[in-house]
Amino acid sequence: MKRDKEDLLKRLRRIEGQVRGIYRMIEEDKYCVDILHQIAAARAALGKVGMSLLESHTRGCVTDAIKEERGDEAIDELVDILMKFVK
Amino acid sequence: MKRDKEDLLKRLRRIEGQVRGIYRMIEEDKYCVDILHQIAAARAALGKVGMSLLESHTRGCVTDAIKEERGDEAIDELVDILMKFVK
Amino acid sequence: MKRDKEDLLKRLRRIEGQVRGIYRMIEEDKYCVDILHQIAAARAALGKVGMSLLESHTRGCVTDAIKEERGDEAIDELVDILMKFVK
Amino acid sequence: MKRDKEDLLKRLRRIEGQVRGIYRMIEEDKYCVDILHQIAAARAALGKVGMSLLESHTRGCVTDAIKEERGDEAIDELVDILMKFVK
Repeated sequence: MKRDKEDLLKRLRRIEGQVRGIYRMIEEDKYCVDILHQIAAARAALGKVGMSLLESHTRGCVTDAIKEERGDEAIDELVDILMKFVK
Repeated sequence: MKRDKEDLLKRLRRIEGQVRGIYRMIEEDKYCVDILHQIAAARAALGKVGMSLLESHTRGCVTDAIKEERGDEAIDELVDILMKFVK
Repeated sequence: MKRDKEDLLKRLRRIEGQVRGIYRMIEEDKYCVDILHQIAAARAALGKVGMSLLESHTRGCVTDAIKEERGDEAIDELVDILMKFVK
Repeated sequence: MKRDKEDLLKRLRRIEGQVRGIYRMIEEDKYCVDILHQIAAARAALGKVGMSLLESHTRGCVTDAIKEERGDEAIDELVDILMKFVK
């Protein structure tokens, strides 16, 4: 659990660096397509962090909720947030 | 449960009709942007059917697995399929 | 151009078959995760058809519009439809 | 053009702040679902910055390329990067 957290924090630091890199690329009028590749990469990295978090949420909170017979609400909430990642 | 199934089947019939409509639009050389709107709509409808199915899967199989202490595997499988919907 | 059209039509036929297959899987109560894999595949296939169409639209209509100095409107329309594919 | 650039830079600053906020939320063990909402928001914001950049790229570089009869390559590149945003 603690290792998962450290891993997530490390990935977020990297994403923050990517976003700052994109900022600089725009500031320095770099080639749009190169910037777009960086944006797609940062976006995909954020999506993966989201899925990792969702996984540990399901293993933790949702699992506990189901065992304590309050699974329905937890699953509603889970599906609700999932819809924000899928178009 | 049975009502959910009927609802899903109805939505899939509609999506099948949309896909056939897109086929015809291409065949008849309709305006690309109009076709693209139909494709985006069919794609979004498929995504929603996926999320509905995922919801009932979580309420059913995953919940059962968790209660029977075989939740880990079920959650691995869940996250794995989720990644196919998120980029 | 004609070959592109035939290729698109063939891919749509295949997607229609996939959607019908998903219908049957739900009807026969197949395992949710297997159905979800099929849905993800059909959805990705639709996205690719969309991108192919978008490509030929850009090479055709948008290119013509730009050459005839009515590019702005065509690009507005292009970006507008793109937003329906990205979340 | 200059105004567009300033607007993009402002939006990237905000996204950088969002990513830093997500970092802190994870560090302080905030509720997963709240963190996931922030991740979805940052991810959507990055997608929109991408689409804005893609729009100005199409109005600028791609339009110029088409007028100078080197449109094909520019459109290949455009579609290639687009595929990174659509699943």
